Amino acid sequence: MNAVGVIVEYNPFHNGHAFHIEEARKTANADVVIAVMSGNFLQRGEPAIVSKWKRTEMALNAGVDIVFELPYVFATQQANTFASGAVSILEAAGCQSLCFGSESGSMDSFNKTETFLKQHNETYQQQVKYFLEKGNSYPKATSLAYHTLSPANDLIDLSKPNNILGYQYIKAANAMQASIKIFTVTRKNANYHDPHFASETIASATSIRKALFSVDGQLQSIRQYVPETTYGGLLEYKEQYGLFHDWELYWPYLKFRLIQMTPEQLKNIYEVEEGLENRILSSALESESFLQFMEKLKTKRYTWTRLQRTCVHILTNTTKKEMLMKEDKASYLRLLGMTTTGREYLNKYKTDFALPMISKVSAAKNRQLLLDIKASRIYAMGASGSSQKKLLETEFKQPPIIVAK
Amino acid sequence: MNAVGVIVEYNPFHNGHAFHIEEARKTANADVVIAVMSGNFLQRGEPAIVSKWKRTEMALNAGVDIVFELPYVFATQQANTFASGAVSILEAAGCQSLCFGSESGSMDSFNKTETFLKQHNETYQQQVKYFLEKGNSYPKATSLAYHTLSPANDLIDLSKPNNILGYQYIKAANAMQASIKIFTVTRKNANYHDPHFASETIASATSIRKALFSVDGQLQSIRQYVPETTYGGLLEYKEQYGLFHDWELYWPYLKFRLIQMTPEQLKNIYEVEEGLENRILSSALESESFLQFMEKLKTKRYTWTRLQRTCVHILTNTTKKEMLMKEDKASYLRLLGMTTTGREYLNKYKTDFALPMISKVSAAKNRQLLLDIKASRIYAMGASGSSQKKLLETEFKQPPIIVAK
Repeated sequence: MNAVGVIVEYNPFHNGHAFHIEEARKTANADVVIAVMSGNFLQRGEPAIVSKWKRTEMALNAGVDIVFELPYVFATQQANTFASGAVSILEAAGCQSLCFGSESGSMDSFNKTETFLKQHNETYQQQVKYFLEKGNSYPKATSLAYHTLSPANDLIDLSKPNNILGYQYIKAANAMQASIKIFTVTRKNANYHDPHFASETIASATSIRKALFSVDGQLQSIRQYVPETTYGGLLEYKEQYGLFHDWELYWPYLKFRLIQMTPEQLKNIYEVEEGLENRILSSALESESFLQFMEKLKTKRYTWTRLQRTCVHILTNTTKKEMLMKEDKASYLRLLGMTTTGREYLNKYKTDFALPMISKVSAAKNRQLLLDIKASRIYAMGASGSSQKKLLETEFKQPPIIVAK
Repeated sequence: MNAVGVIVEYNPFHNGHAFHIEEARKTANADVVIAVMSGNFLQRGEPAIVSKWKRTEMALNAGVDIVFELPYVFATQQANTFASGAVSILEAAGCQSLCFGSESGSMDSFNKTETFLKQHNETYQQQVKYFLEKGNSYPKATSLAYHTLSPANDLIDLSKPNNILGYQYIKAANAMQASIKIFTVTRKNANYHDPHFASETIASATSIRKALFSVDGQLQSIRQYVPETTYGGLLEYKEQYGLFHDWELYWPYLKFRLIQMTPEQLKNIYEVEEGLENRILSSALESESFLQFMEKLKTKRYTWTRLQRTCVHILTNTTKKEMLMKEDKASYLRLLGMTTTGREYLNKYKTDFALPMISKVSAAKNRQLLLDIKASRIYAMGASGSSQKKLLETEFKQPPIIVAK
């Protein structure tokens, strides 16, 4: 059986995602689509609006055959670590290819860009360092450094989030000498972070979330942008748990935790760099909401996303010691769900997988897995009463989700 | 001017306390009554129902002239540490005497008991150790050990909370060779922990709190047991902050924090002794309220009070390293409030005080004071919205309370 891999967050799954999967399956002539998906906390440093289990169910209902979890240790990281964790999982799960969406849809420009950057690596790194020292954020510094190299017109624009990810997938695969073949299809999405609805059926996940959290947030308003199964799934989640998750739900915990901590303790948290600790502590004390806190905290030096990720690590109490292992590969395949076709694939190939597959968590000792469990429990604390209890139990009680297909 | 000291928590101030102050003032022929009072967290390991500021105001309105805060480092401790911190403050503030309430009202029995225990110290300590090893709690072990020494009938019963405290005050004063003269007056209180109303005007603070937190908790029901000024103060607090504080308000934070922590991290917290960490962590995950959690956690080995104190230290993130300094004296006098008479006393004698007096906190460096500030901020997190904001600001903005009297 031929498997194509995709790297996703599905927050939530929408029509643009459905189009991507369809194109990936067609282009690769694949029998199964395998998604590696961030767990309950995402690359943008946010809690997912619904749990990884509900997002898995939505994905399986809409064209994905197998969902593996991208461990916390990769999911809540900058693009290069995120990419290498994700690629290592798809490679281990026997995917022949990996398909990502891009504006150009041309693999040639991506490959040329990767070669170009490899050739100019030394100058590039010097330039990145220079622009960082000038007080720019990391993405801004890399973008500026790239332009000083005067890349040819047929190279890609590395200031766009999707392009950065695509480039990082290729770089990661080359670095680990993966046999997985990477290709790209043209995106039919709105711009990555576009907060407005601009088309009849395609909207960015950002604009969908914005609609869900707006004061008069009616699920109905997003119906045309998502598959019916996503719409139903969101309805169900709201009914079952009474909420969609966002940062504000966790703000009291974050503030409490920051009040508890000394600057020295805060410095042990992953991504809290020199000097940032005092700014974080004083901003927290003065703020009454997460948004207010972030607005106080934001500087030119750090992106909003980067600061949000730091907050996720404070919330989950993830230390530098726990994260800075320089490991670039996953150590397990955590199966979140599968279609019946996906199960067929797993039964046939799982003994050949390069990593052990975990279908149900019991007494975990693995460091990466312990972080995933902790993150899921912290995520559950966003709910209260019986909803919290249900979410807390899921991590150990939930078997992989199966959808007949 | 002649000053008599009292050691109190006033949670809340009631008629029994008023009687005690009156007797103390009369017996000592004192011009001013100085109270050293626990801050926002109490010796029983609980948040005070109203803040230390409101409790100070109630005390000043009802007969106390000066209120100093008993620092967190002493207030949330077992009787001997609590006592030595409190006695050291009254001694430093120039009190000629210290008055405590007891059932017998006889200083003679207390002094005899202290001498008796000093004489039999070695056997006593051996017996305490023996009973602890048998799995008894510390208070139970000391009580059993005491009885094996066959104390004469005119010695005091060391199984009663007020007697234990009285004994500890005497022991502490002797140990620090204090010049303060200790005496006792007969209590006109209900039994210390009595949960029921038993008299027309005198009720225990426990029964008063129980009434306040009962489902149909009407302030009216406690009116006969407290001075009108306490009644008014409680009404005001409820109006201003919308709540009385109890452990359940802090339970989400405690649970969140425990989910964040590894057993190894938990072991660093003060009073989390060998083996207790796993029991605490598993009990927290399974519980949906603080009461449920405590019921799961409770064993013969530890008293309810001791376990609650441990939870306070987890909540405030107070480590063994921070607390275990073997210091038995306070390092400052934190003035919470005074009457005009109290102010006269302070103006006259403060230059002679053995410790610096702090009237307003700014940039604190003192370790004990930093803990007090942290505890107050954590206490504020029990409220939300603008109430939380007001409580958070109090620690730095509130000058000592002054009552004309």
